[in-house]
Amino acid sequence: MATKKSKSNKENLMDNKVWGGRFREGTDEIVDRFNASIAFDRNLYSQDIAGSIAYCRMLAKQEIMSQEEAKQIIDALTEIKGEMDRGEFSFDEASEDIHGAVEKALVGKVGSLGEKLHTGRSRNDQVSLDVRLYVREAIGRMIALIKDMQRALIGLAEGNLDLILPGYTHLQRAQPVLLSHHLLAYNEMLKRDRQRFQENLKRVNIMPLGSAALAGSTFDLDRAMVAKELGFDEITKNSMDAVSDRDFVLEFLFASSALMMHMSRMSEEMVIWSSQEFGFINLPDALCTGSSIMPQKKNPDLPELVRGKTGRIYGHLIALLTTMKGLPLTYNKDMQEDKEALFDTVDTVELCLTVMTRLFEEISFDGERMREAVKKGYLAATDLADYLVGKGVTFRQAHEKVGKIVLYAMDEKKELDQLNLEELKTFDEQMEKDVYEWLDPALCIKRREIHGGTGPKGVKKRLKEAKREIET
Amino acid sequence: MATKKSKSNKENLMDNKVWGGRFREGTDEIVDRFNASIAFDRNLYSQDIAGSIAYCRMLAKQEIMSQEEAKQIIDALTEIKGEMDRGEFSFDEASEDIHGAVEKALVGKVGSLGEKLHTGRSRNDQVSLDVRLYVREAIGRMIALIKDMQRALIGLAEGNLDLILPGYTHLQRAQPVLLSHHLLAYNEMLKRDRQRFQENLKRVNIMPLGSAALAGSTFDLDRAMVAKELGFDEITKNSMDAVSDRDFVLEFLFASSALMMHMSRMSEEMVIWSSQEFGFINLPDALCTGSSIMPQKKNPDLPELVRGKTGRIYGHLIALLTTMKGLPLTYNKDMQEDKEALFDTVDTVELCLTVMTRLFEEISFDGERMREAVKKGYLAATDLADYLVGKGVTFRQAHEKVGKIVLYAMDEKKELDQLNLEELKTFDEQMEKDVYEWLDPALCIKRREIHGGTGPKGVKKRLKEAKREIET
Amino acid sequence: MATKKSKSNKENLMDNKVWGGRFREGTDEIVDRFNASIAFDRNLYSQDIAGSIAYCRMLAKQEIMSQEEAKQIIDALTEIKGEMDRGEFSFDEASEDIHGAVEKALVGKVGSLGEKLHTGRSRNDQVSLDVRLYVREAIGRMIALIKDMQRALIGLAEGNLDLILPGYTHLQRAQPVLLSHHLLAYNEMLKRDRQRFQENLKRVNIMPLGSAALAGSTFDLDRAMVAKELGFDEITKNSMDAVSDRDFVLEFLFASSALMMHMSRMSEEMVIWSSQEFGFINLPDALCTGSSIMPQKKNPDLPELVRGKTGRIYGHLIALLTTMKGLPLTYNKDMQEDKEALFDTVDTVELCLTVMTRLFEEISFDGERMREAVKKGYLAATDLADYLVGKGVTFRQAHEKVGKIVLYAMDEKKELDQLNLEELKTFDEQMEKDVYEWLDPALCIKRREIHGGTGPKGVKKRLKEAKREIET
Amino acid sequence: MATKKSKSNKENLMDNKVWGGRFREGTDEIVDRFNASIAFDRNLYSQDIAGSIAYCRMLAKQEIMSQEEAKQIIDALTEIKGEMDRGEFSFDEASEDIHGAVEKALVGKVGSLGEKLHTGRSRNDQVSLDVRLYVREAIGRMIALIKDMQRALIGLAEGNLDLILPGYTHLQRAQPVLLSHHLLAYNEMLKRDRQRFQENLKRVNIMPLGSAALAGSTFDLDRAMVAKELGFDEITKNSMDAVSDRDFVLEFLFASSALMMHMSRMSEEMVIWSSQEFGFINLPDALCTGSSIMPQKKNPDLPELVRGKTGRIYGHLIALLTTMKGLPLTYNKDMQEDKEALFDTVDTVELCLTVMTRLFEEISFDGERMREAVKKGYLAATDLADYLVGKGVTFRQAHEKVGKIVLYAMDEKKELDQLNLEELKTFDEQMEKDVYEWLDPALCIKRREIHGGTGPKGVKKRLKEAKREIET
Repeated sequence: MATKKSKSNKENLMDNKVWGGRFREGTDEIVDRFNASIAFDRNLYSQDIAGSIAYCRMLAKQEIMSQEEAKQIIDALTEIKGEMDRGEFSFDEASEDIHGAVEKALVGKVGSLGEKLHTGRSRNDQVSLDVRLYVREAIGRMIALIKDMQRALIGLAEGNLDLILPGYTHLQRAQPVLLSHHLLAYNEMLKRDRQRFQENLKRVNIMPLGSAALAGSTFDLDRAMVAKELGFDEITKNSMDAVSDRDFVLEFLFASSALMMHMSRMSEEMVIWSSQEFGFINLPDALCTGSSIMPQKKNPDLPELVRGKTGRIYGHLIALLTTMKGLPLTYNKDMQEDKEALFDTVDTVELCLTVMTRLFEEISFDGERMREAVKKGYLAATDLADYLVGKGVTFRQAHEKVGKIVLYAMDEKKELDQLNLEELKTFDEQMEKDVYEWLDPALCIKRREIHGGTGPKGVKKRLKEAKREIET
Repeated sequence: MATKKSKSNKENLMDNKVWGGRFREGTDEIVDRFNASIAFDRNLYSQDIAGSIAYCRMLAKQEIMSQEEAKQIIDALTEIKGEMDRGEFSFDEASEDIHGAVEKALVGKVGSLGEKLHTGRSRNDQVSLDVRLYVREAIGRMIALIKDMQRALIGLAEGNLDLILPGYTHLQRAQPVLLSHHLLAYNEMLKRDRQRFQENLKRVNIMPLGSAALAGSTFDLDRAMVAKELGFDEITKNSMDAVSDRDFVLEFLFASSALMMHMSRMSEEMVIWSSQEFGFINLPDALCTGSSIMPQKKNPDLPELVRGKTGRIYGHLIALLTTMKGLPLTYNKDMQEDKEALFDTVDTVELCLTVMTRLFEEISFDGERMREAVKKGYLAATDLADYLVGKGVTFRQAHEKVGKIVLYAMDEKKELDQLNLEELKTFDEQMEKDVYEWLDPALCIKRREIHGGTGPKGVKKRLKEAKREIET
Repeated sequence: MATKKSKSNKENLMDNKVWGGRFREGTDEIVDRFNASIAFDRNLYSQDIAGSIAYCRMLAKQEIMSQEEAKQIIDALTEIKGEMDRGEFSFDEASEDIHGAVEKALVGKVGSLGEKLHTGRSRNDQVSLDVRLYVREAIGRMIALIKDMQRALIGLAEGNLDLILPGYTHLQRAQPVLLSHHLLAYNEMLKRDRQRFQENLKRVNIMPLGSAALAGSTFDLDRAMVAKELGFDEITKNSMDAVSDRDFVLEFLFASSALMMHMSRMSEEMVIWSSQEFGFINLPDALCTGSSIMPQKKNPDLPELVRGKTGRIYGHLIALLTTMKGLPLTYNKDMQEDKEALFDTVDTVELCLTVMTRLFEEISFDGERMREAVKKGYLAATDLADYLVGKGVTFRQAHEKVGKIVLYAMDEKKELDQLNLEELKTFDEQMEKDVYEWLDPALCIKRREIHGGTGPKGVKKRLKEAKREIET
Repeated sequence: MATKKSKSNKENLMDNKVWGGRFREGTDEIVDRFNASIAFDRNLYSQDIAGSIAYCRMLAKQEIMSQEEAKQIIDALTEIKGEMDRGEFSFDEASEDIHGAVEKALVGKVGSLGEKLHTGRSRNDQVSLDVRLYVREAIGRMIALIKDMQRALIGLAEGNLDLILPGYTHLQRAQPVLLSHHLLAYNEMLKRDRQRFQENLKRVNIMPLGSAALAGSTFDLDRAMVAKELGFDEITKNSMDAVSDRDFVLEFLFASSALMMHMSRMSEEMVIWSSQEFGFINLPDALCTGSSIMPQKKNPDLPELVRGKTGRIYGHLIALLTTMKGLPLTYNKDMQEDKEALFDTVDTVELCLTVMTRLFEEISFDGERMREAVKKGYLAATDLADYLVGKGVTFRQAHEKVGKIVLYAMDEKKELDQLNLEELKTFDEQMEKDVYEWLDPALCIKRREIHGGTGPKGVKKRLKEAKREIET
């Protein structure tokens, strides 16, 4: 952590700065190290160059530079992009940020002509543009990956339509459900996640260039043209807001947090279901890991790690919320902290989505263990109460009676369908033989053909609908 | 904190429970105290009763109860609602929750008939319904209050179109801007806040009843009818998701967090601007407070407190995100923790919006102090560089030259417009008399008629547009 | 949310203020409503009065007031305290805060003499004092409650020394352990929690009075005397820090967060263990609740709710961290937001501790289910590898060999101890009959008498030690 | 994000695993990519090797391996460490983690002998050891860096003992204080920060090896010897807790959060003080940066960025708290998420401390601007009230009277010391000529020689004391 005061001559130190004129001495080495964002904002190179090319075209059209000048600049930028794409570009560690690195490379190729590109532009609006382009692309990938997971889930649900398992509340067996119904609950979560990213896009896809530092440019820029070139829907309406707004990043972090929360719930179930005690699922060896000491272990590391990474994304969200709190207008250096949180969120969530999708593609179920689980735990108790309601008992009384039947059965170490009619009649005279139809798990499920319920017909219908939804 | 084990007879203890049948002993007093949500979910009484009335109508239509029975129940519920509205209803502290309290009161009025109302319904879907109704109403109020604040801001911007002040980056004077332009930046923030609440509504306004505990009801319920009665756009598509989804609350907490973040930024500026050093604004005595020890103090408590309460709302967001992390399907008791965070968020944000609006209505500006501030700090330096660009200098060279002029002026203890033409020419021969037009703050502003910039015409146009926007 | 501008005469409005002189108009009703802390800081009444009594004694000793005056004031304060204790005091809703309410009541009793009490004091140092007294008491209760839980755990561990269950990693069965060893792991967590609260106390128990508003009082106050009267260890060393420091509250919130995290882990295990699939524990009916719709349900609401409330405490921590971020010195109104987060944390954590302790007192284990669980899942695999190491095989080779034995056994649908010696020898010739001693769960446990391990002697020793620790 | 299913032969894929025996197929490429921690836990190489060397010595002493074997292993480990130190070691990307990478390199050097090292050890206790060693070192550096900053602050305070400025509450001028007193308030914050790290150390410096996977090792390990070799104070007392405890990391993150919060407050003041409006400080050019568009700008980026990075550290704290919430015992893969948050916290906070210290070393004050600021704003009002108390007026009445004097002075556009005695007497007859002594800022400061106050003697004394404190 030692820090040298490098008071060597200013010229060298200012070489990589785009703002040296007013300074009497070079910046301290620690400032460069602390301030510089090049280590992470180089991620934005393709967005930065795409933005500059569109901006350059507009400058030419507006005759702020000549068509010939623009051509030279655009060719050079395209070259630089190629070098970066191929990993041939050597980033000067002394560059402050990606914008400075690109500009310097440009001047290296076309000489002082390159110094014209920044006319009417500031890093403040440029960075906003670059990040918007980056988020827009990330949203595109997120939505595609979410759809992949939905596809895997729907496939899994279709392939296991015959399986039933206990639905749980409070991790206590509650009522029998179709496994497919359970899996489609995940699909609903993902559907909302997609919607949120889609809505986020509305506030991402707005073009900020022309805002300059904060007050707007004095040059006659054609903002709409830049927007069109770059595929933006709108242009920003207030320059001071444009350079100090990070709402669109926060929304992305929130949409990601909600998505991670959903995946943490799926993960929790995979972990629980793959315990020896539940034994509902088998994860393939290829998606598990072992122990350095215990030879028998096969651990569900993937869902555990997805669950664990939820904290990381929540952390990024709270980090940027904290950073933005109480900042006066307009741009403040604090806002540079938006990028690493964003980049790590994109990388992490994409990887988690990919991993979970693989899991859903490879997972297999132990239908036998599930079926056994449905048999114990009085899961038909609600249906028994509903049966009594059919006989004219009020629901509360029916609930009370069935509660007592359950107590009796527990004492007898029997399940409800093991009680004979006589026993049942002691609790309510109206019980008839048809009561046993209400105690069969498969029939319990069939009885729930209400819209949104676990009834097999409804589930199949919903499966079809869900497939259609992901095609849009 | 002492806790008595109250093993008194079960009957009494179960009096207020809707699930006693299967239990051999009454619940412990600490369970009641810890579990009960009646202390806060009584907030939901009007939503709960509205939901029950609609549900009851549907039960009658579906002939699950008779029209006559339904009428009795609805009349009784309406009566109960009236008592609660008037504060005459005495909540039994022993009630577990608002649902139990209402049901008990209903049975008190109509006898065992009241026990029929819960047919086909569970607290799991009932609480989802109630909270959705609550959030829907809260969103309506939020949007109205945000519009109020936008109105106040627009009024303030219109009433002070002649004022200019420094625009800041890094809290350093940057370029002159119209005060109205600055205030309209706030308006942009609020516009996005409204959008977010509006989008939140899409996922709120979906009707969950019929999902029952988790698997769907066995009764032939007309879910669409209930939705229509209560003004919902859709019905939920998966019963397991319906009872375990709290996304719509999380979104509300996030939209509130972003809004509070914006208000914290406005507050920070009010606090800074009302310091003696800045002196840009005067807060009326009636909106300030004093000190118990320092007789001269007049403190901007309101914006400070708004800024401080930002943490509270972030805290609620992270609280519910944490609670939901890793929960298996479907309902778990943890989820009861959604309510207090939500209620306090609604109350806090509404109050903050009201307070900030009052501030914007009452605030006055010290135009003289602002104008003075614009004069010092070389705020026209960018325009001077742009002037040189007009003479054919590349932007980077122009920037460098003006940097050196600023250094020179600082040494001479002069501002840019105090340098004579001779002095300016030593930095670039092309300087002419017209350069002084580029150094006048008012003209700096006029030169920025670019869309979104601080130019007076553009600002006026944007004001008109902004007014129209809040009428939609 | 409507807000009336109450410009009625100033005198009335300023009645309850301690700072009216410099104001030309009364404060707006919304200011009072928004700013006032009386609704929650009345919690601090006993601390406030205790502080005032000590302060008053010192003023008399320093001859800033007479002994006679002090006596009158102290008597009156004691009376007020009594009224508040008995719930007879009617808090004037118009009071700004508890300090104003007490001062007003004092003046009501002793006339203008009461106005002398605030000599040399500010609300800024007064509120710091009150909160410090409050946190000090809360820490005392926390520590006592944690000890109660440790006692319950130790009792449970002592009473079940014969029970074994699988120890888990990744929720997969790993190695057999004593239940008591598992329970003592909780005890270690709680031990650290106690330490943290204890350390927190060091920074709480410092007396701030004399700091006045921010710069120190001009009166000749004997700060050490006040500290001694109130049982403080030290006095604050810098007045500006004293009135703007909330570290001690943040530490309390963090210590509480860590404690809740621990309880969330215990809760998770209780929930999982009380599932039908695990079936390791029975929660008594009196500590569970049922379902409004499913008559058979008995839900572990208490641990679920404790787990859920973890989010709430994390939220309070992040709320105050956010509030304090970026505040300039010294006191800012934002800091008023410390109190509700603190109070709710104290109430919530105390209740959670009480509830968890009750659970540990009442819980019973199903030793049979646990023992069965130990038998399946190859939990002795590590011991088998260790056995081979004893024969001179390197650990990695032993691990590899046992891995293959496990695979073989799975194919044969056998557990390790069901393989005969011949079968075992095919994997390593050196296997002898004594290998079966390494496959018996009870012996696996006995073999781990290493310090800190699950060996029965070590566990018993640790139990004794743990008992001693909570007596200190 | 594409993911290939690499079902190539298992042998290769398991090459870098320490647990292959029981697996029928190689792990999927995505598992390796997602699970592997080698990309970040290579940071722990020196801790890992130090731990292994100590462990190896103990194995030899306990005759679990021979002295000769141990020597070979230790020599090889030392060689590996050297290669890593010099950057010559090529990390195999296929390694799962640093433990596997080191073990593989060891086997590469000494053959199958290397496979003995893991005897009696698990990655679960090994990773706990490594992280504890890492945090211990980090705490050492943190404490040293905090002391450096305290030294810089004390130097600054000593060098500017003659400067006065307004003390602020609510960012409103309150009372005159010595600049040195203000700077010493920062010192108090840092003192507490040091204490917290020091206390954290108690729970860090406990040796976990011997806990093995979770239940303790079956080998006769001398845990105390390992602890002594590695400088630990204690050994862990419960193996299940030892492998699932991350409290010591959480505490470190909290102590860092509190420290960042303090630095964010100092930063906020630097930013405000370096605004043109306040103008209290000058940051040297070498510690500032400029604008890409505005040639005159000199921005306080460093304190802004420190302030902004506060969010990042809060984020890491909430991330790990979230991750740990609700995890059952013992080790779960989620816990791997502790490392990146920890590493980034260490790097970030160290850099922020270094940067802030540099700022305090280089900063200079504009004593003239500060003095002017003290003159306006009625900062002596409290002293005037105290003066009246000296004449027998009760404090409340004195406060009221002075409030009215301030109002009068404002109307007259005068400061208090510009009012003549006649004018003052109209508010209280007892005013005498000596009142002007109470209105002189320098005397206001001198009058506060109360312990902890801003009186010059006290401040000098505290400076001496503070110097002594950082020598311990």
